[in-house]
Amino acid sequence: MMISRQEIIIAQQRIKDYIHRTPILTSASINQLIGAELYFKCENFQKVGAFKMRGAANAILSLSEAERKKGVATHSSGNHAQAVALAAKKTETAAYIVMPETAPKVKVAAVKGYEASITFCAPTLEARESTLKKIVQETRAHFIPPYDDRRIIAGQATATWELLEDVAVPLDTLFVPVGGGGLLSGAALSAYYFGKNMEVIGTEPAGADDAYRSFKSGSLIPSKNPRTIADGLLTSLGNLNFEIIRNYVTDIWTVEDQFILKAMQLIWERMKIVVEPSAAVPLAAIFQHAGKVRGKRIGIILSGGNLDLKEFFDQFK
Amino acid sequence: MMISRQEIIIAQQRIKDYIHRTPILTSASINQLIGAELYFKCENFQKVGAFKMRGAANAILSLSEAERKKGVATHSSGNHAQAVALAAKKTETAAYIVMPETAPKVKVAAVKGYEASITFCAPTLEARESTLKKIVQETRAHFIPPYDDRRIIAGQATATWELLEDVAVPLDTLFVPVGGGGLLSGAALSAYYFGKNMEVIGTEPAGADDAYRSFKSGSLIPSKNPRTIADGLLTSLGNLNFEIIRNYVTDIWTVEDQFILKAMQLIWERMKIVVEPSAAVPLAAIFQHAGKVRGKRIGIILSGGNLDLKEFFDQFK
Repeated sequence: MMISRQEIIIAQQRIKDYIHRTPILTSASINQLIGAELYFKCENFQKVGAFKMRGAANAILSLSEAERKKGVATHSSGNHAQAVALAAKKTETAAYIVMPETAPKVKVAAVKGYEASITFCAPTLEARESTLKKIVQETRAHFIPPYDDRRIIAGQATATWELLEDVAVPLDTLFVPVGGGGLLSGAALSAYYFGKNMEVIGTEPAGADDAYRSFKSGSLIPSKNPRTIADGLLTSLGNLNFEIIRNYVTDIWTVEDQFILKAMQLIWERMKIVVEPSAAVPLAAIFQHAGKVRGKRIGIILSGGNLDLKEFFDQFK
Repeated sequence: MMISRQEIIIAQQRIKDYIHRTPILTSASINQLIGAELYFKCENFQKVGAFKMRGAANAILSLSEAERKKGVATHSSGNHAQAVALAAKKTETAAYIVMPETAPKVKVAAVKGYEASITFCAPTLEARESTLKKIVQETRAHFIPPYDDRRIIAGQATATWELLEDVAVPLDTLFVPVGGGGLLSGAALSAYYFGKNMEVIGTEPAGADDAYRSFKSGSLIPSKNPRTIADGLLTSLGNLNFEIIRNYVTDIWTVEDQFILKAMQLIWERMKIVVEPSAAVPLAAIFQHAGKVRGKRIGIILSGGNLDLKEFFDQFK
């Protein structure tokens, strides 16, 4: 059964005190470069620095009190781990997070800072899943998946719901990065329920183009050895996500890493905000296809702003 | 005659359609680290990426129509050049900018983009001043100084005026970076006229501590061979600026470059915004003296966000 309009509205009500209503920024100089009107929904300013907080909060707040008492669990090396840990902390729920031994120290520290209990495992999907299974069996904690879940999708959909509420003009097209597809499938549903004939374009690194290939072929094709600077988009599309994307997304565009980096630099330099490579994928795709968007009103979801700045700052030492 | 309360209010009215009313951001995690409530006035989001747009716009808009017809002129390698060029363009005034041959290409390109006429000269203060003098004699253009000027000071004062208007709670202390002193002297006047017993602390790199030494000794001591990562703060204090600072500023704190870099990294990582080293000086000084600010409500002016990101992005190639 498809996620309803009502589920998204309920998600918004449920999570609104647990998240930031992130600002929408515009840039006169980027508008001029593209020849279109761009509205950036800044989820890099979201709690934990990424849209993931929305889905995690919605999933945890959907649980009954009895369920929440047993805690929640997930495996993740990145933003989802932080989002589950923080949402759990804010709802006084125990959180068990499985992280690969290779996870960046800064992310491990953040998860610890949110008082989650961390279990390290070997850096393979098998090790992560078997470790998680063991923990869930022991604790009876509730598993919070990263994207292939209707509560997660309804949560991520609220970013687009807010964008449509807060931009005074109707948008022609919405551009969204796609990895596992939680953000894109949510965006597509919000566009369908709350937009005015707004097209939704998924944007994907050419080096991790499983969503593009799945969308074009009509059947789910998992990623094989994906390689891209946009490290938040390496994951393969989820089943439920693909089901929504094939029905509600207009098209998927791919873009090369060199353009992703250029778009990222442009956002940093012109807008003075820090976004991670994955968040720059939509603007990069727009640049590559500028002819198709000229004169249009465009929404862009800047998915997050978490990246390792250590090397940049070390150069000054 | 001192700059009046009315001059600042008039400046605000005069420039408000030419500048951004920049947002005020807060960071729960930085508040927690410091043990105080910090309100960041984000002039990195200002037009041309720095507070300089305020003073330049006020100075140019203060001219009579007859004066403006002859154009405006200045010498600068940085943000002031861009601010004068853009303010001139927006008021349909000719702008003549003297830039050292060594000025960063990206800044030269920006000034050109605003349709100013650029004259290059040798990279010395003497060459800059003599070239400017020649241009002013030829064109009769009006010189717009970078900081030692009451219209500039009244313009920069509007940043603090807005901060006081937009923060709902009374602030105990305001921290401001100091180079030539345009921003700090303006902030001190706005604090005096519009604040409620708010202290104003100037913050300066230890490697360019002429304001600190001037303030402590009571007489203007110019910079000698200043060296700091905060390249916007190399200039010596102006005369009028010093006069205001010695009368209206509570204290000046200095801070080492290593702490400036750490504060800058913290702002990028936690707040997801791009600020230049000079803008991180106040937070760095607060960290060094955290004991003095605990429990207080603090305003910080993030002066700008212009820096060369080329090397950072080249590392990915």
